[in-house]
Amino acid sequence: MAEEVLSKERILDTTEAILRKFGPAKTNMSDIARALGVTHAALYRLYDNKAALKEAVVERWLERSLPPLQAVVEEAAPAADKLYRWLDTLRRFKRSRASQDPELFEMYSSLVTEAPEAIQVHRNHLLDQLATMIKDGIKEGAIAKQEARTTAMAVFMATTPFHHVAHSAEWELPDGDQRFDAVWHLISNGLLTR
Amino acid sequence: MAEEVLSKERILDTTEAILRKFGPAKTNMSDIARALGVTHAALYRLYDNKAALKEAVVERWLERSLPPLQAVVEEAAPAADKLYRWLDTLRRFKRSRASQDPELFEMYSSLVTEAPEAIQVHRNHLLDQLATMIKDGIKEGAIAKQEARTTAMAVFMATTPFHHVAHSAEWELPDGDQRFDAVWHLISNGLLTR
Repeated sequence: MAEEVLSKERILDTTEAILRKFGPAKTNMSDIARALGVTHAALYRLYDNKAALKEAVVERWLERSLPPLQAVVEEAAPAADKLYRWLDTLRRFKRSRASQDPELFEMYSSLVTEAPEAIQVHRNHLLDQLATMIKDGIKEGAIAKQEARTTAMAVFMATTPFHHVAHSAEWELPDGDQRFDAVWHLISNGLLTR
Repeated sequence: MAEEVLSKERILDTTEAILRKFGPAKTNMSDIARALGVTHAALYRLYDNKAALKEAVVERWLERSLPPLQAVVEEAAPAADKLYRWLDTLRRFKRSRASQDPELFEMYSSLVTEAPEAIQVHRNHLLDQLATMIKDGIKEGAIAKQEARTTAMAVFMATTPFHHVAHSAEWELPDGDQRFDAVWHLISNGLLTR
């Protein structure tokens, strides 16, 4: 019974709610155990410390961005259209989270700088999705034959200003859409004539 | 005579030396005035506060990156080669400054996040140089006709991970050169077949 009551889902739901209420700095393991109605020890058996629990909350929060992106990957549309929509969906997701869910976004930002390995799994999911669309594009002849994963990494890096937290202060600038379209035009068509 | 003794050059040389010695937080206007052998008041007549003086030091420090970049712009070489070399020179300059001149690099990083308008002049110089090479490329037929300044901005944004201070922690990663080449390949040739 205790197993069921202390499901990962319930722990993370509760922790997320408390982190939102008190902020990451003021929340401690006792607050979370109390809200769950379990002992300190029971919680520590599952998470080593507050950092581990925060990481688990942020990871789940990040995973929520994947289904809408996966839906784009699975669309029956030309690869170039899907790639544009995927990048646009990703940047809009990040932008809305930064403005509408500032506590969780702040925790995510800290992880990016302080424990980048914690977001590596999420980053790899994103690169997998990008690589799938690039492979589709190669199959349909829209993209020249190349190592899809390397190209996925290059596309992800070249669009850094639109999805990396270090640039969130620029996301509400009035010319953001124009900048994004200019970078998309550049990476899709290339600079040089062929 | 006082005019000559208190030249901008001498003030900035002295301030830079003191900032390196004591660090930006511990340096104050009195230290700088004392080192210059002038009164507090004489220094304040020229710079409103420590922030203004620090800004002037960082601006001059940034301007030192321009001559080697300008030399690339003026090379008698195909535009594509020059563009690659210019981006490569810029990233190597930033990387060497981050590792070899950490105090000044730290001050520059603070300006980027806290007073981005202070580095706007420098950024515009860089965009002008990029636009010049793009115009040359259009003239020689290597680049299709387009608005050079918009493209310059797109190239600058797409190479953000290699020159923006927010990413300096990644500059010494072993696959840095590979990543740079992958992004250059992407932006020069484009993703889509034509």
